Amino acid sequence: MQSQKMILMLDSVRRLMRGGATARAINVLRKGRPADVAQVLHALNDLDRHAVFAALARTDTELASASISELSLEAAVELLKTLPPEQIALVLQELASDDAALFIDEFPDELKESVLDLMKVEASTDVQELLRFAEGTAGRIMTPDVFALSEDLTVGEAIASVQSASRDVELVYYLYIVDDRNHLVGVLSLRNLLLVPPTTPIKKIMGTDVISVRTDKDQEDVARIVAQYNLLGVPVVDEENKLVGIVTVDDVLDVIREEATEDIYALSGVRSDENALSTPFRSVRLRMPWLLVNLATAILAASVVHAFENTIEKVVVLAALQSVIAGMGGNAATQTLAVIVRGLALGEVTWENGRRVFFKEITVGLFNGLTNGIVAAIVVMIWFGFSPKMIIIGGIVAVSMVINLVIAGAAGTVVPLVLKRLKADPALASTVFVTTCTDVGGFLSFLGLATLLIKYLK
Amino acid sequence: MQSQKMILMLDSVRRLMRGGATARAINVLRKGRPADVAQVLHALNDLDRHAVFAALARTDTELASASISELSLEAAVELLKTLPPEQIALVLQELASDDAALFIDEFPDELKESVLDLMKVEASTDVQELLRFAEGTAGRIMTPDVFALSEDLTVGEAIASVQSASRDVELVYYLYIVDDRNHLVGVLSLRNLLLVPPTTPIKKIMGTDVISVRTDKDQEDVARIVAQYNLLGVPVVDEENKLVGIVTVDDVLDVIREEATEDIYALSGVRSDENALSTPFRSVRLRMPWLLVNLATAILAASVVHAFENTIEKVVVLAALQSVIAGMGGNAATQTLAVIVRGLALGEVTWENGRRVFFKEITVGLFNGLTNGIVAAIVVMIWFGFSPKMIIIGGIVAVSMVINLVIAGAAGTVVPLVLKRLKADPALASTVFVTTCTDVGGFLSFLGLATLLIKYLK
Repeated sequence: MQSQKMILMLDSVRRLMRGGATARAINVLRKGRPADVAQVLHALNDLDRHAVFAALARTDTELASASISELSLEAAVELLKTLPPEQIALVLQELASDDAALFIDEFPDELKESVLDLMKVEASTDVQELLRFAEGTAGRIMTPDVFALSEDLTVGEAIASVQSASRDVELVYYLYIVDDRNHLVGVLSLRNLLLVPPTTPIKKIMGTDVISVRTDKDQEDVARIVAQYNLLGVPVVDEENKLVGIVTVDDVLDVIREEATEDIYALSGVRSDENALSTPFRSVRLRMPWLLVNLATAILAASVVHAFENTIEKVVVLAALQSVIAGMGGNAATQTLAVIVRGLALGEVTWENGRRVFFKEITVGLFNGLTNGIVAAIVVMIWFGFSPKMIIIGGIVAVSMVINLVIAGAAGTVVPLVLKRLKADPALASTVFVTTCTDVGGFLSFLGLATLLIKYLK
Repeated sequence: MQSQKMILMLDSVRRLMRGGATARAINVLRKGRPADVAQVLHALNDLDRHAVFAALARTDTELASASISELSLEAAVELLKTLPPEQIALVLQELASDDAALFIDEFPDELKESVLDLMKVEASTDVQELLRFAEGTAGRIMTPDVFALSEDLTVGEAIASVQSASRDVELVYYLYIVDDRNHLVGVLSLRNLLLVPPTTPIKKIMGTDVISVRTDKDQEDVARIVAQYNLLGVPVVDEENKLVGIVTVDDVLDVIREEATEDIYALSGVRSDENALSTPFRSVRLRMPWLLVNLATAILAASVVHAFENTIEKVVVLAALQSVIAGMGGNAATQTLAVIVRGLALGEVTWENGRRVFFKEITVGLFNGLTNGIVAAIVVMIWFGFSPKMIIIGGIVAVSMVINLVIAGAAGTVVPLVLKRLKADPALASTVFVTTCTDVGGFLSFLGLATLLIKYLK
């Protein structure tokens, strides 16, 4: 239903923009929700997108703001940068300050400063507060305008306070309770307030075992906590347990989706600022570096084969079989990498239990290597006949398969664990390291064994 | 903080279970939150986990229920099956009916029936209602106990109704409004109720543009809608727009995490019921089929090389270079697959815009093939010298690189799109199809061209 509407909107906007009727296109958009407008913007070509967004920012700043916060970070920043700084400031000060901070942080320094100068003092102070926190932490993704109640209120006063709260503060189902020095001391749901007489002190009915996170908590951990405890939001406190903000579940949804996309992309050598609808030349540019790195490692692996050309010349069937060993190592490594990288993301794998996981993956490599090695050896012998030569080659296939699948398990565990330990993204670059290990390991063990046994193979 | 507590709990439980003090271990667990208990269960060995869970189910059914709903589906079902059916029924009827349905659906038919018979009628009716809906749809993951208000109420009556609502119904920040035939007609937030005089009819203040989903909506689409519109929950309606349930944001978080894990796993050939902490033999068993399928395709690719052995015998350097072409095709295909599979999951790629995406990926393959092909050709010529033979081989490297990267783009787009169209998981099995295309395509184009030009290569 929703997407049907979006497609109709997109069609009219495209038609109107072709006819130069920008103002009418904007009127069409103003009938939509921000998420729909974002989708339309996303689907337009660059020229139309810039023109539509500029017009929207002039005529309906609020909708322009709400729409860009539904775009991906890269798309939003790209779009904002097409506006003059004054206009950017107007759009950003309509946004929740966590979103505004996210965007501003991507600007070049000069633009960043001029936009902050042009924003209303109140909004720019909030944004600058957030920018103090490191990227990817609770402090950066929280909303500082959190609604809090003093612990000394009665239920009646608390209800009055909810009634008079500004529309702008993030008010979810939970109400956080603070003491007179703003320390987080309790939590209540709006519904709790409705269940007791107005004269009850809220201290008496509040829950005191509040789950909270520190400002420096990693956003992935925050997401994990919200998901695990089924929360609609989690309060953020500073090192003295003073309430400074709230991370709501919609921020968490964004974090979870982003991290998942990043993991899939990183394992596959795709940059996170690409998507299926990027222009071909953007995709070419973004994917090229990864392919060139892989080309270098492929040539490294080829040089291993090259070193054994004498052996291959004598027993040319090795040329056909070498890729089986290298390829199977790559497949097994991909399995291990997926499990380890996802395990790290979900908090199941840690540096502490890494040793156990390592031995597990080696065991898995050993057994899967044995099975696949034996099957491959049998296939080779059936294929080429049970001559003494082919029986030995079958044996070499089996042994090198075991070696390479153990290498796959070991490298597939160690590389992401070490990257994580070094505070790097465990998914990023893992694949290229690990498949280089299995390519080189596969060729080296298979062709090396064949060279050692060459006198039986002629 | 939370995980610190969990680790302490885990240590005491392990120590107490070693000493046979099950009852004391249960007392430790009863001080924890369900999510903590679930983590402890997850980390125990099989023997302890079964013993602890059985004891917990007997002494604190409510906590046992709440804890298993925090486990993965597979882990929860495995644990439930260790209990006698009567006990399973007691645990399940404490659960939200969507969770209970999820678990029961995984039972063998006989157990399913006896557990449903043993449950309280009310609970088992709810579960059977849910089981009518297909797996992976809104109907299946919704909670049928949704709180709704009649459109004829005043604000004062609505507040009274919230106050008297059972603790069991899913009450989020939104209140859904229905007409006298239960059609969904509006929505209010709890806060809206507090802002107007009690005599106001709710019809006057409710929002009428309610975002809802049909029972048969795919759960991924539901997740997308909740994320896009930043909702805390979305009402589920039947084909007549009657309100039948609600999908809350915590269900959506689970869907998003599961789908992301499934995508990563499926692209890497890992079954979704595996994780980093599975026992080695479980992992061996679960990964084996995929590796054997890959072995079959690797042997297929090897047979292509085998067909060209005459050529390789004459120009043995081809054996070293063939893997570069095949491998680069695999890398480029992995990039395309990641972008397309993620694009399908996020709704950016559809059957309708598939054609455009297909041409884009072919263009990307063409340009990246050209660049990488030329770089590879230059490296080959520098490596082996600029003899006429090596210049021709360099040319073959470049041309077959282009061919194979175009194959990668085409197969990487078409295979997941077609799988999705056939209502299969686009990530599953994509990788093996596509890399078979690039392996075979790479060897065939590279060795085929070399064979055609063999008279210039001797």
